[in-house]
Amino acid sequence: MEGPTIGGVIAYPVTPFRRSDGAVDTDALRALIDRLVASGVHGIAPLGSAGESAYLSDAEWCEVAEASLEAVARRVPTVVGISDLTTEGAVRRARFAERAGADVVMVLPVSYWKLSEREIVSHYGAVAEAIALPVMVYNNPATSGIDMSPDLLIRLVSEFDNVTMVKESSGDVQRMHRLHELTDGRLPFFNGSNPLALEAFAAGATGWCTAAPCLFPAEILAFYETVRAGDLADARKQFYRLLPPLRFLMANGLPTAVKAGLALQGLDVGEPRRPLLPLEESRVRQLEALLAQL
Amino acid sequence: MEGPTIGGVIAYPVTPFRRSDGAVDTDALRALIDRLVASGVHGIAPLGSAGESAYLSDAEWCEVAEASLEAVARRVPTVVGISDLTTEGAVRRARFAERAGADVVMVLPVSYWKLSEREIVSHYGAVAEAIALPVMVYNNPATSGIDMSPDLLIRLVSEFDNVTMVKESSGDVQRMHRLHELTDGRLPFFNGSNPLALEAFAAGATGWCTAAPCLFPAEILAFYETVRAGDLADARKQFYRLLPPLRFLMANGLPTAVKAGLALQGLDVGEPRRPLLPLEESRVRQLEALLAQL
Amino acid sequence: MEGPTIGGVIAYPVTPFRRSDGAVDTDALRALIDRLVASGVHGIAPLGSAGESAYLSDAEWCEVAEASLEAVARRVPTVVGISDLTTEGAVRRARFAERAGADVVMVLPVSYWKLSEREIVSHYGAVAEAIALPVMVYNNPATSGIDMSPDLLIRLVSEFDNVTMVKESSGDVQRMHRLHELTDGRLPFFNGSNPLALEAFAAGATGWCTAAPCLFPAEILAFYETVRAGDLADARKQFYRLLPPLRFLMANGLPTAVKAGLALQGLDVGEPRRPLLPLEESRVRQLEALLAQL
Amino acid sequence: MEGPTIGGVIAYPVTPFRRSDGAVDTDALRALIDRLVASGVHGIAPLGSAGESAYLSDAEWCEVAEASLEAVARRVPTVVGISDLTTEGAVRRARFAERAGADVVMVLPVSYWKLSEREIVSHYGAVAEAIALPVMVYNNPATSGIDMSPDLLIRLVSEFDNVTMVKESSGDVQRMHRLHELTDGRLPFFNGSNPLALEAFAAGATGWCTAAPCLFPAEILAFYETVRAGDLADARKQFYRLLPPLRFLMANGLPTAVKAGLALQGLDVGEPRRPLLPLEESRVRQLEALLAQL
Repeated sequence: MEGPTIGGVIAYPVTPFRRSDGAVDTDALRALIDRLVASGVHGIAPLGSAGESAYLSDAEWCEVAEASLEAVARRVPTVVGISDLTTEGAVRRARFAERAGADVVMVLPVSYWKLSEREIVSHYGAVAEAIALPVMVYNNPATSGIDMSPDLLIRLVSEFDNVTMVKESSGDVQRMHRLHELTDGRLPFFNGSNPLALEAFAAGATGWCTAAPCLFPAEILAFYETVRAGDLADARKQFYRLLPPLRFLMANGLPTAVKAGLALQGLDVGEPRRPLLPLEESRVRQLEALLAQL
Repeated sequence: MEGPTIGGVIAYPVTPFRRSDGAVDTDALRALIDRLVASGVHGIAPLGSAGESAYLSDAEWCEVAEASLEAVARRVPTVVGISDLTTEGAVRRARFAERAGADVVMVLPVSYWKLSEREIVSHYGAVAEAIALPVMVYNNPATSGIDMSPDLLIRLVSEFDNVTMVKESSGDVQRMHRLHELTDGRLPFFNGSNPLALEAFAAGATGWCTAAPCLFPAEILAFYETVRAGDLADARKQFYRLLPPLRFLMANGLPTAVKAGLALQGLDVGEPRRPLLPLEESRVRQLEALLAQL
Repeated sequence: MEGPTIGGVIAYPVTPFRRSDGAVDTDALRALIDRLVASGVHGIAPLGSAGESAYLSDAEWCEVAEASLEAVARRVPTVVGISDLTTEGAVRRARFAERAGADVVMVLPVSYWKLSEREIVSHYGAVAEAIALPVMVYNNPATSGIDMSPDLLIRLVSEFDNVTMVKESSGDVQRMHRLHELTDGRLPFFNGSNPLALEAFAAGATGWCTAAPCLFPAEILAFYETVRAGDLADARKQFYRLLPPLRFLMANGLPTAVKAGLALQGLDVGEPRRPLLPLEESRVRQLEALLAQL
Repeated sequence: MEGPTIGGVIAYPVTPFRRSDGAVDTDALRALIDRLVASGVHGIAPLGSAGESAYLSDAEWCEVAEASLEAVARRVPTVVGISDLTTEGAVRRARFAERAGADVVMVLPVSYWKLSEREIVSHYGAVAEAIALPVMVYNNPATSGIDMSPDLLIRLVSEFDNVTMVKESSGDVQRMHRLHELTDGRLPFFNGSNPLALEAFAAGATGWCTAAPCLFPAEILAFYETVRAGDLADARKQFYRLLPPLRFLMANGLPTAVKAGLALQGLDVGEPRRPLLPLEESRVRQLEALLAQL
């Protein structure tokens, strides 16, 4: 299979909920996606961690996938996040995403019981073989409870033809080194850890998967263009300006913090779903100040 | 609220699935529960970690809860495990368990996004206030991704009247010391870490939550009686005999290993649900040898 | 080589320094050791972690070794702690201890550079082969920076005839289980983690290496006799009474806390050596209260 | 106090020992330092971790300090490493280094007992106030057992006038971000983790403290010039070429691996001091191949 054509800044929309009844708010979702596409990001990734996919029912999940793909309308590539506790559920969602028009699926194994390497490979195989789309393997031990080493990530790329990209969210740049080394720099890897954005690009990342463009897309894209042009001194300067809000988003949880930020900017996307609680008022004020300083 | 009347060996049945279509096998479930009750265990806890509750649909979950309560038929107390990614789902399950006749619910928060202490307290509050049953707070960082300190566990007990017991599965005996100290020994705590059984009782645990009685109930109960009688030398001797199979169960995952063991004993409970895979053949042979040595 | 004859409560004296000039105060050392022997402890272990051996010059180390052995005067066995950054230094100290009349040496590898297993084995071999005394292998990752697994500890016992005992201070009771299992209960192991005293004895420890008898020997010995008699309920009761001061000693550093406690009891042993600082006044008051409650 | 004038590649010589008697080989030390200075490195740092200072007697330590300063002969700045278990010993060494002509001292607290923040500050204060030289605070938790947070490092810089630089060897680039943020980029920090060289410079490091120039100075310096010129793409290319030998040095211990490499290059610096053992023959072959590929 050919390598992917995606790269750059891949934006992760949150999933809006109506304040009245907690249902998915597809109008707000479309408005958010329009804003993101208009800002110039290079891809849209609904149903990722930021999209609270873990807290959606199957029906809601399908609704968000369809509405997102319609809203993007192929203006940029769409990467649909697939994660489900059961393999059967993950396969079902991947097939749905393919039929609905996704360009790529990003697959995160989440599990209650610790999975063996054999079980992880079998899970990815079942999903990859069920579809013809390119698959991005997603390592995010902090949320999924499963930590896949660079060697395992590359094993998955080797074993399944349509597994062609990696997203690394452990925040450990040495793993990116290892991905580069083991594939002579041929495997595209994406960084999913916001406070590592500068160093991940220094280490050769193909793109940055981030929910931050929901709140400050222009600054994120300007930084990306600078780092891509290879101007290290200026990139560093911009990065250190971005770092306080990036760190705030990570420390407070992406859906929680991004939803609060969007409300500050006049786009009401509702509250995160419980057990997540809305951002505390004192922190809303901090976020407001951080955004104002950009 | 009065203290609980449960204690001793609380047995965790696995959830059998039919080999034909993967559906819940309530006949095998009843057979397993009958066996457990007949063996003399002091309580039955369906829909725990060993019961693969994380991999069940809502309908299946209710089916298992009802079938288990019918099978136990109040011969011993039944502790129903409640865990769901959303607070709404956890409340719904707790109410269902109460209506179906549970004696206690054991509540484990599982979350994709890391929860703040405020969010954990709010989650427990929502569940506890929705029912009148006693609630056992369950700490199991390895499977749930949430680690609740002894201080937080006790805060939950203090804040909600019907939260009256703790199950500690971190495997750290110092946390049990802390639970004892902070409550002058008045808070009943249960041990959920099999290889800590001896030391947990030494430290004053009220009971042992374990799936091991599915495979060797007589030995587990004999050990419990010995330790309860305070005969430390004999208890140690028995414990070291139990330790190799207990450690095997933990190392291979409870549903995976217990299902393989039940098949060896002639009770077909099917396979664990994918992404979990059946125990590898070489390990089945190890388990067979370990069980034979008891 | 025959098994050791030591066991029970092995007491660790601190090393007194004169307030006037910071030199070793052998008079106070003798007074402390006399007190310990008179209290009924089953062994004395000078120059352990509590004895600040890491902060002594070679000459001071020899002075303390000799003075301690003279003070004990064979009334109980003496276990001399040997740790030095270089193998040559460790060998020199072990030979000195042997000549001076030690019954056992307890050897802790400390290293600046992380040692490989090959280097650890070679270090122990050099020390063990230089003397005829029984050697106790000492694992204390928190202070030494080297963590030896139960398998490595047992390898050392197997390879060198006079390495016949283990002291485990990691605080992980599962390692004691492993030591028991791998040797069918034949290897004597000592517990060096104060807050694990109850569980270590439950798991079969031969003895408890502790500085606590410097401050409250009668209570430590009474607990030991109870646990040895196998009366679990009473042992637990005594243990929970001992736990707050034991935890205080560990949290504040043994030399720092024990020296403050001895001053409270009227035995002036001076200050710990810098960079260690004397216990802060507010904590001295806490310690006073904890000791008063015993 | 004015900011330091050091920066760039600070080279760490190993300490040669004679094969005949294990004594310090000052001739080989001078030869090594001459080679390093001639290669163009921007500073020389004797008696660091790579210099096995932890395994030297006081007399040897002074001998190495003097011989190194004589060999450098002010052609580049000399940074003398100061670490001793006692504060008194650290002060004595710092004073010796100052009298002998050091330009900077790099101070690493090493301790057997875990030090409180109060004790660390007091230790640094004693050393800093004993001399007039600039002090570089050195954080290296892996070897020293003490982990100083960025906040503590900056506290030390604030409290003592001549503490003006930080060396961070934890390998965590987020700590460098924090150092930059807390001081608005005004505090010079040096990277001491070889596999982080690229990202540390991306994050704004002033210099790289490394023993690698003992073996391949030209490649290290060429990388530094490229990264300094801000050519990110070329820097990355060079970095990935350097990474395998850098990682080898780290994985095998700097003195062990560098000494083996120098022998391969015809400069006999003897063996590391026991408990460190010479590099195993199979690994010497690996190192040879890695060096040949540069």
